Amino acid sequence: MSQKPRISKGTRDFSPKEVRKREYIFSTMKSVFTKFGFQAIETPSFELSSTLLGKYGEEGDRLIFKILNSGDKLLKADVDSLNSKDLGKFSSSLSEKALRYDLTVPFARYVVQHQNELSFPFKRYQIQPVWRADRPQHGRYQEFYQCDIDVVGSNSLLYELECIQIFDEVLSTLNLPAFTIKVNNRKILNGIAEVSGEKDRLVDIVTAIDKLDKLGEEGVLEELSKRGVSQQCIDMLRPLFALSGDNEGRLQKMSAFLSASEVGMEGLKELSFLFTLLNKAPLKKGKVEFDVCLARGLNYYTGAIFEVLAENVNMGSIGGGGRYDDLTALFGLKGVSGVGISFGADRIYDVLHELKLFPEHSDDSLSFLFLNFGENEMLKCVELADTLRSQGLDCEIYPTAAKIQKQMKYANDRNANTVLMIGTDELSNNEISVKSMDTGEQVKISIADFLNQF
Amino acid sequence: MSQKPRISKGTRDFSPKEVRKREYIFSTMKSVFTKFGFQAIETPSFELSSTLLGKYGEEGDRLIFKILNSGDKLLKADVDSLNSKDLGKFSSSLSEKALRYDLTVPFARYVVQHQNELSFPFKRYQIQPVWRADRPQHGRYQEFYQCDIDVVGSNSLLYELECIQIFDEVLSTLNLPAFTIKVNNRKILNGIAEVSGEKDRLVDIVTAIDKLDKLGEEGVLEELSKRGVSQQCIDMLRPLFALSGDNEGRLQKMSAFLSASEVGMEGLKELSFLFTLLNKAPLKKGKVEFDVCLARGLNYYTGAIFEVLAENVNMGSIGGGGRYDDLTALFGLKGVSGVGISFGADRIYDVLHELKLFPEHSDDSLSFLFLNFGENEMLKCVELADTLRSQGLDCEIYPTAAKIQKQMKYANDRNANTVLMIGTDELSNNEISVKSMDTGEQVKISIADFLNQF
Repeated sequence: MSQKPRISKGTRDFSPKEVRKREYIFSTMKSVFTKFGFQAIETPSFELSSTLLGKYGEEGDRLIFKILNSGDKLLKADVDSLNSKDLGKFSSSLSEKALRYDLTVPFARYVVQHQNELSFPFKRYQIQPVWRADRPQHGRYQEFYQCDIDVVGSNSLLYELECIQIFDEVLSTLNLPAFTIKVNNRKILNGIAEVSGEKDRLVDIVTAIDKLDKLGEEGVLEELSKRGVSQQCIDMLRPLFALSGDNEGRLQKMSAFLSASEVGMEGLKELSFLFTLLNKAPLKKGKVEFDVCLARGLNYYTGAIFEVLAENVNMGSIGGGGRYDDLTALFGLKGVSGVGISFGADRIYDVLHELKLFPEHSDDSLSFLFLNFGENEMLKCVELADTLRSQGLDCEIYPTAAKIQKQMKYANDRNANTVLMIGTDELSNNEISVKSMDTGEQVKISIADFLNQF
Repeated sequence: MSQKPRISKGTRDFSPKEVRKREYIFSTMKSVFTKFGFQAIETPSFELSSTLLGKYGEEGDRLIFKILNSGDKLLKADVDSLNSKDLGKFSSSLSEKALRYDLTVPFARYVVQHQNELSFPFKRYQIQPVWRADRPQHGRYQEFYQCDIDVVGSNSLLYELECIQIFDEVLSTLNLPAFTIKVNNRKILNGIAEVSGEKDRLVDIVTAIDKLDKLGEEGVLEELSKRGVSQQCIDMLRPLFALSGDNEGRLQKMSAFLSASEVGMEGLKELSFLFTLLNKAPLKKGKVEFDVCLARGLNYYTGAIFEVLAENVNMGSIGGGGRYDDLTALFGLKGVSGVGISFGADRIYDVLHELKLFPEHSDDSLSFLFLNFGENEMLKCVELADTLRSQGLDCEIYPTAAKIQKQMKYANDRNANTVLMIGTDELSNNEISVKSMDTGEQVKISIADFLNQF
C-alpha cells in the first residue's frame, strides 16, 4: 500500500544546492572560529527532561519537544493528571527525554559534567540543530541550526573583543557589504534604573526599552507607564532614546548621566576599554555602535550585550549575544563567567540569497560527464574516469547508451562543465571529444593530450 | 537549585578532539562522494509517524523514538487503549511525529516528494544522525550517524562498480591497511533456492546462510533444518559453504551449480560484468571477494549485495549495501531501481583508533598562544594576533596576566605549538620572544622579522 509522502510541518528538506550554500556559511564560520582558537564540541540531540525543563521559562517549557517513553514505561501514564487537565504533569509521566531547545543549556551541562577534563578558559563552538514546538510560519521552523561560540571561565574583556571580531570576520568573509554590531552593557542598564530611581523596576524598564525598534519612542514610553514606572522616572529616561553622536560622544554623555551610579560607571568603563581594544585591531567591514537601548529579551546577560544587523536588507538581527554569569550554576558549578554569541544561520542564508552574495562555486556543478555510447565505449570511460578521479577531479559516466538528447539534458540538469565523448571512432583512434557546456565549443583530441592537462 | 548533570543513556558528548576525528572521517567521505558526482541532501530529524511506522518490521517500529504531541493535543490520549494495554495504539494517540530511524526511508520519501525537481539517475549522499530506542550497551548508541550514498532511477551496473570504488577509495584514503569488500547477488541466492527445490523457503535459507559467520557451517545446517528446510535441500546446499578458489573459479563453479536456474544465471552474469568493470579500474587497497553466503539481514535487496570487513581488527562489518527495487513504491512511485551503500562511521572510528590511523593534524593543536604580561603588553598582542589571523593563522591570547606557570599549563593543555611573549622589554624594543613547545627552544627577535615569516 502506498501513501502520498508529506514532510512534517515546520521542517525542511535541503536539496543539494541548499546544502552546499548552507555548508558554505557553516564552513566560513568554522574557519573563523578556529582562527580564534575555538574548538567544536557536539552534544546529543536529546537530553534528560530534567536538564532542559525549567530553564527557559514557562513559554520555553511549552515549546520543548518531549520524547515519548518506549515500551512498558508507558504503563506509568498518570491518567489522573490527564483527567484533571494537568497536561504538564501528564507529559512528565510519559516522557523522560526531550529534544535540545538551544545550545546554551546543553553546553552548561557539558561544562559541568566534563569540568575535570577541560582547561579554562574553555572556548568552544557548536553548530547543531535545535527544535522548538512553535507554530510553523513563514521563516519560523520547528527544526533549525544554531551556531554558537562561548568562552567560559574568564571575565576578561578580551573575549568581548573576540566576539565582535568574529562577528566582523565571519560576515566580512561572507561578503556582506555593510552591517552594524550594536553593543551595550547590562551594567549600564542597571545604572540607568538606579539613577532614574526605579532600581526595582529594572526588568520592566529593560523589557520596554528593548522594544524601541518595534514600538518607537512613544510606544516604549507608553509601555513603561503601563508597567507602572513612575512619570518622574520616565522623564529621566526620555533623553536616552535620542542619544546621538559617535561612540565616544555617547560614552561621554552617558558618563554624565550615570555619574551617581557605581555599577553604571563600571559598565561604561568596560565599554570604553572594549573600544580601546577595538582600536588596536580595526574591523574589516563591521561598524560598532554603542546603543544604550540595546537590552535583548534574555534576562541572563550581566555584562556586554551584542546584536548584529545587516544593512540594505530588512531582516531583523542576524546575530547576538553577551556576557552572562553563573550559567553553569544551574548544574552546580558556581563562579564561572562566560561570554558568547550566536549567529542566525537561516537569516544569514536569506540575506546572502537576497543580496545575491553566494559565490558561484557554492553551486552544484559537476566537472566532467562522460556520455555513454555503448558497452565497449563505456569500459574505456570507466578507465578514464578512474584516472580523472585519481587526480582529484569529479566526474560521472552516464549509465546507459540512451539517446544523446536525453544524455545532454542530464548534463544540463547536473550542471556539467564539460561533456566527454568516446564513440566508436574515438575509441578506435584513442581519442576523446571534449565539449565545453559553457561555450558549446567541441574539440577532438588524443586521450593522451587530454589527460596531460591534469 | 542546582542539579547534578547527567547525559541521557545511550547518547554521547563529543569533545573537540573527537569532533575533529569524526570530521576527518566525514570530510574524507564527502570528498570521495563528490568525486563520483554524488550530492548531499538533508532531511528533517523527525518525520510524520505515518512515514516511518510499518517500514522496519515490528521490531523496528518498537525502536522508533516517538515525539509527544504538544499542548491540548494531549487531551486526545486514548486511555481505553492504555487500559487494554494496547500500547501501540496508546502511543499513536499521543504522538504524530517520530525521529528518523535510518536515512533510507526518509530518502525514499524525499525522492517521491521532489520527483519533479530531480533529474534521474539521482545520486545523493546523506550524513546525518539517526535514533533508535535500543537498550544502550557497549558500542550501541541511541543516537549515531549514518553515512549513506544511493543512486536511484537506473539499473546500470556502473553504479555497483561505483559503490565498490567508493568503499575502496574512502577506506584507502583513511589509510586502512587491508579490507575485503564481499559481493554477492540476491539473484544468485534466489537461484540457489530454486535449484535446491525450495523456492518458497528463500527467506529461511537466506536468513540461515547469513549467520554463517556467527554459527559456523554446522550451526547454519542445524538452523536450516530447524526452519523446516528439507534434508535433500540441505544436502544440496552444503557444498556452497566451502566454495573456494579465486572469484573467477567461484563464478565457474556456481555457473555449473545454477545452470538450471534462469534467475541464478542472471545474477552470475551481473556479477561477472561487475568484475569486468573492476578490471578497468583496479582498486587501491580493497580486495573484492565473491561470497555466495553473503545475504545480509535486510530483505529488500534485489540485486547486488555488499559488505565490507576490515582486516587485522575484530570489528564486524564497517559498511554494506546493495541494490533494491521499488523502495520508492512505499510512497507511490513505482519502477525506480536503486543501489546504495552505508558506512558504519562509529565502527570506522573505532578501527582508526585501534590501528592508530588518525593523522596528527586531526588533532586539536593551536598554532600560537600569546602569553599575557599586563594590559599594555596585551594591547600589542591584540594588534599582532589580528595580523596573524589575517594571514589565516590561528592564535589565542591568554586572557589575564596570571602567573607564567599557569599560563604555560594552559599552553600545554591547549596543545599550543608556539608560545609568543611580549613582556616589558620586548614591548619597548619592538621585539617578541618565540618559544617552540616542541623543542623548548626560545628566541627573541624583532617583531618585523617575526611577521616576515608569514
